[in-house]
Amino acid sequence: MMSDAAYVAVDWGTSSFRLWLVDRAGQVVGERRSDDGMMTAAKVGFASVLQSHLDAVGAGIDLPVLICGMAGARQGWVEAGYVDTPAPLAAVLERAAPVAGQSRDIRILPGIAQRDGSAPDVMRGEETQLLGALGLGASGEALVCMPGTHSKWVSVNGGTVERFSTFMTGELFSAVSRETILSHAVAGADDAEDREAFKSAVAAAFKTPAFAANLLFQARARQLLFGGTPAEARETLSGTLIGIELAAGLARALPQAGIRLVASGRLLMLYRLAFETLAVAVEPIDADEAVRRGLSMAARAIWTR
Amino acid sequence: MMSDAAYVAVDWGTSSFRLWLVDRAGQVVGERRSDDGMMTAAKVGFASVLQSHLDAVGAGIDLPVLICGMAGARQGWVEAGYVDTPAPLAAVLERAAPVAGQSRDIRILPGIAQRDGSAPDVMRGEETQLLGALGLGASGEALVCMPGTHSKWVSVNGGTVERFSTFMTGELFSAVSRETILSHAVAGADDAEDREAFKSAVAAAFKTPAFAANLLFQARARQLLFGGTPAEARETLSGTLIGIELAAGLARALPQAGIRLVASGRLLMLYRLAFETLAVAVEPIDADEAVRRGLSMAARAIWTR
Repeated sequence: MMSDAAYVAVDWGTSSFRLWLVDRAGQVVGERRSDDGMMTAAKVGFASVLQSHLDAVGAGIDLPVLICGMAGARQGWVEAGYVDTPAPLAAVLERAAPVAGQSRDIRILPGIAQRDGSAPDVMRGEETQLLGALGLGASGEALVCMPGTHSKWVSVNGGTVERFSTFMTGELFSAVSRETILSHAVAGADDAEDREAFKSAVAAAFKTPAFAANLLFQARARQLLFGGTPAEARETLSGTLIGIELAAGLARALPQAGIRLVASGRLLMLYRLAFETLAVAVEPIDADEAVRRGLSMAARAIWTR
Repeated sequence: MMSDAAYVAVDWGTSSFRLWLVDRAGQVVGERRSDDGMMTAAKVGFASVLQSHLDAVGAGIDLPVLICGMAGARQGWVEAGYVDTPAPLAAVLERAAPVAGQSRDIRILPGIAQRDGSAPDVMRGEETQLLGALGLGASGEALVCMPGTHSKWVSVNGGTVERFSTFMTGELFSAVSRETILSHAVAGADDAEDREAFKSAVAAAFKTPAFAANLLFQARARQLLFGGTPAEARETLSGTLIGIELAAGLARALPQAGIRLVASGRLLMLYRLAFETLAVAVEPIDADEAVRRGLSMAARAIWTR
């Protein structure tokens, strides 16, 4: 049944692992998702984690594998280096690093580095999303917002990544909601929503970003003095952190083409609501689709050239 | 030897416990410091924690005890309530809550609450520091910066707390340095210092507070791309968080009397350096002294009136 499979595409992040088995027509014929990210794989072994997922989708022993993400970091499987800014997206797929000593052809795509002493920055995985989201033939300027553990705001011009900034928004949300006094305020808020609290926090943080650490504490103080639900506190926390990110991302002139928002699921919903609160139009692009498309573009370029 | 002791003063915070045995002349004749804060005492029992420290300094069985801080919180020993803003500091020492069922006279000072729906806030412990730092007869306007786990910026006018804002600066520092990707960047930086990294982070965050979550990530990216010490990364983290706090605290017109900085030890050093970086003059007041003086003022008012 799997005889038509052409290659395997893997998005290997810090804490997540996704694999697609793709046929000659570009169709997905098998898929795996797990939390065997770099953190887990660095302990268990990257080769054995990958093999277990390849076995699970019945991938043939000669099938080549293309990987993007943190598996290519220094603390990953094989360091895949960086393409430096200004970084043509085409250069990313030309510099895949081979994993030595494997029976099949396994390669890891490089990241992009901004070696600017006053604004040093790095990405790994997002370059492949960008490839899928914008394509290789993209012309004109684009500003791309890519929410996540480490949100990226990327300026692309004519298919070249010119500059980008990383914001620790998602990781701050986790750390603050688990490891500070706000953990009491948000406890038990797992599924509930409070869009009004989110929107007013986005607006407040956007207006006075310097008060971010005060707006966070207010979520706790409001509950102590006036009651209020855990969902309200959690959405206030989330809206505050996203609001200051948007204050920075929107601080300069926007390109005529507007903003592309590359996200999926709950993050897509939250960021759309945040941009809407600030009356800024965005064009949404599904992040899961984008990374798979980017990997497929790269795989075809590597193994059919 | 201890026959001259008049009362016991206790500053009981979330994670710290300090006790002073004070004689009739106001001199400290015994002292204890430990990490038996509210978090520990809530499990072990407040009465037994206090008694063990009273035994250690040989406090007589009839000696009264005055407490300030989180022991008076809802999750503390006895809820001591709040004086609402505008809060005369004199009202704080008039509303000490007695701890029932104890053989000796034990009272806990209330906190201060700002019941403002658009800027709700609370303090517990800092009101006693303010009492000691400014005294009861203070006239004129004062802006007081009180760095800590939850830094407070307090506007006092004629001995009355008019408004205040809490910033989660210290707690964010702990959470970010322990629970995010920056934990790798700061690992091993325990004693080293890097004042230049601190100062340039303060200046950068003060100038563009919206970029705080980006400036934090740069500490990691700089290390990946250019090397750099753990101390540099830690001071960048610290300077960024203090820099945005100062951007908020200094956003409005300052009183003629300038800013009082109530702090001790390393925090005093860091905040002085931060204010100096921004060319803002401050009058330092020792925080440890201030809380002890505030407790003593309250104890004398309560037990000699």
